Amino acid sequence: MTTDGFRVLGEKSLIEYIKSTPSLASKLGNELNNLKIKEVGDGNLNFVYIVISPSGSVVIKQAVPYVRLIGESWPLAKERSYFEATALKRQHELCPKHVPEVYHFDRSMSLIGMRYIEPPHIILRKGLVSGVKYPLLAEHMSEFMANTLFYTSLLYLTTTQHKSAVAEFCANVEICRLTEQVVFSDPYKISEHNRWTSPYLDGDAEAIRNDKELKIEVAELKSMFCERTQALIHGDLHTSSVMVTQDSTQVIDPEFSFYGPMGFDIGAFIGNLFLAYFAQDGYADDRKTYKEWIINTISDTWNLFHKKFTSLWDKHKDGPGEAYLHEIYKDAELWELVKQKYMISLFHDSLGFAAAKMIRRIVGVAHVEDFESIVEPAKRADCERHALDFAKTLMKKRRNFDSITDVISAV
Amino acid sequence: MTTDGFRVLGEKSLIEYIKSTPSLASKLGNELNNLKIKEVGDGNLNFVYIVISPSGSVVIKQAVPYVRLIGESWPLAKERSYFEATALKRQHELCPKHVPEVYHFDRSMSLIGMRYIEPPHIILRKGLVSGVKYPLLAEHMSEFMANTLFYTSLLYLTTTQHKSAVAEFCANVEICRLTEQVVFSDPYKISEHNRWTSPYLDGDAEAIRNDKELKIEVAELKSMFCERTQALIHGDLHTSSVMVTQDSTQVIDPEFSFYGPMGFDIGAFIGNLFLAYFAQDGYADDRKTYKEWIINTISDTWNLFHKKFTSLWDKHKDGPGEAYLHEIYKDAELWELVKQKYMISLFHDSLGFAAAKMIRRIVGVAHVEDFESIVEPAKRADCERHALDFAKTLMKKRRNFDSITDVISAV
Repeated sequence: MTTDGFRVLGEKSLIEYIKSTPSLASKLGNELNNLKIKEVGDGNLNFVYIVISPSGSVVIKQAVPYVRLIGESWPLAKERSYFEATALKRQHELCPKHVPEVYHFDRSMSLIGMRYIEPPHIILRKGLVSGVKYPLLAEHMSEFMANTLFYTSLLYLTTTQHKSAVAEFCANVEICRLTEQVVFSDPYKISEHNRWTSPYLDGDAEAIRNDKELKIEVAELKSMFCERTQALIHGDLHTSSVMVTQDSTQVIDPEFSFYGPMGFDIGAFIGNLFLAYFAQDGYADDRKTYKEWIINTISDTWNLFHKKFTSLWDKHKDGPGEAYLHEIYKDAELWELVKQKYMISLFHDSLGFAAAKMIRRIVGVAHVEDFESIVEPAKRADCERHALDFAKTLMKKRRNFDSITDVISAV
Repeated sequence: MTTDGFRVLGEKSLIEYIKSTPSLASKLGNELNNLKIKEVGDGNLNFVYIVISPSGSVVIKQAVPYVRLIGESWPLAKERSYFEATALKRQHELCPKHVPEVYHFDRSMSLIGMRYIEPPHIILRKGLVSGVKYPLLAEHMSEFMANTLFYTSLLYLTTTQHKSAVAEFCANVEICRLTEQVVFSDPYKISEHNRWTSPYLDGDAEAIRNDKELKIEVAELKSMFCERTQALIHGDLHTSSVMVTQDSTQVIDPEFSFYGPMGFDIGAFIGNLFLAYFAQDGYADDRKTYKEWIINTISDTWNLFHKKFTSLWDKHKDGPGEAYLHEIYKDAELWELVKQKYMISLFHDSLGFAAAKMIRRIVGVAHVEDFESIVEPAKRADCERHALDFAKTLMKKRRNFDSITDVISAV
């Protein structure tokens, strides 16, 4: 089946495609007769193939025009592939150590050819479930977030550059709408897609639907998500969008990218680390020290992000960015006040979005392996309830937290 | 001189243009041999011709590729004319009683043919200087703002419609940049374009450049102006963008329109009424009751806007708007809380932008006739200082005001 040159590739047609595409064939050393191909798309939306030849490797990612998790009954623009490729290239430029290189993009096929992130890299979430520590994770993720968010914001861009980029990514609206629905709406109402560990959490899910204060807060976050074009955000920065080893961290899958609030990325990452934290009590082995490591990683991620982001801002204070003109804000005391105000506001946004991302993974459509791997439902529900209660507090009281240390104390 | 089909029209070439344009000729009853033509562009940016035939009339507005006030040394995209025409048409659809009809738009000529807003309509600012009361002004302006802002926001639009419109208006960036510069930046630094009633206000102007608290607040407002795509705003809604009689109010000149914060429009209008208020003490005759009328008009404008805007929201609570889904917010108490929170936040934004618009008219490049018509500099400076001091309080303390009555008390 083809529409406008698009067809879903299978293994066989994929090989033909690679053979006719020099930029892919060359990455495989042009040794194309004994390719090893493995489909690994464990995500919700795409087909992903690892292709290995005797002298090279590539990953081929193809978007299909529906939500893979649900099926063809939930259509979704395959144009998201264009935005994923565009964001990947931009993020790779801004943070080459932590974003894979794009070798090839075919817009009509919604197909990206990119670096194969080789073993022993695994999806971070799986590492968190297994209890593996990643000593450089906070360092690397704060680097990724500081670079990608700072350099695409008005702290670095002119408004001319910014509005032009905003306009382009406005067209990724369909995938933004998916987030609007599954993160900011469905968990707060009755929806056929919602699920939770029933019957244990029936009351908790209902309590969320009846929590006026929470619903007012999530509305504000949703409006910010829809209206605030603060920076080019990844848009889906949870712990399954990150691949890790002990010394490498690679951020993948920015198909949800658009110009939105920075706090949505920071919150997604921190919120998913909190989910991992609360899941630990459901595992068989003793995770006490591992829980401490997660908490320290959350704390380090924010603190390092704060440091790196403000350092970039200092470095470029006299640069092209137009939000805070150096001539107006050059007084040393004022400059510190400006940064403090910006960062505390970003911190509160991040906490709010972290909470929204936690809640939706417990009572919404898409759950996380952190909890799903706890086989016994009663035990899983206990862990999920702790996470849910914390997330509710976080969303409602976020403006009362002055530092990540305060947040950690509230866990 | 022509570039891409563009040429600046004079009276003679304008007549030829009308003769060859049926949509304009027909509005003049095709009686084109004795046209009366008058150039009335008293604004900063364009040429405006009133064209009258024995049986009809039109206004022809042509944008030229520079800031008319400054000259060709300050270039400005004539493409703003496209956005003006697009916004005029949209606003006329949403509020036909208070926005003139567009008869003709020629993109390559940056030329709009529209309804001639006939005498006794005058520019509102001139009426305010003369001390004329307009009993329906608050009613009409609140109607215009409620309709144009509500129906272009996510309270009424789907995010699909909204993002598509946002993207289109992102291209009006050059004119947004003019606002960024003259409203949010220049008044807070030394700029060749700034001027004020010197030497009387030399110290006041310097105090603004050294006011850390004020500069932090204006940075936040500037970021909101650049980043927040809340609704299609007029973008320049001061009292010279409004034409009035005792029973008619017409809003013109939306060339600064784009998707920005609603408070920028409300603030522009209210801020300019406050400027008119503070200018009254500089006029020869007794303006005591007129000052009361202005204050009441400010108060009525906000209160009526609040009422009309929330009524539209109630009316369409189950409509296409996606910010607050009815299913989530239908509880009566919650619905009231949601509206309260939204409106108080919009109120504070409006006060902040009102203050920014006041400040820039006293120490920035473009001044207002309200003050300029006070011939004696010392007297003018006194009025301006009162306005400036009030504006500074308004910007810094805006979040402490719970109602427009509180604001009025602070005057």
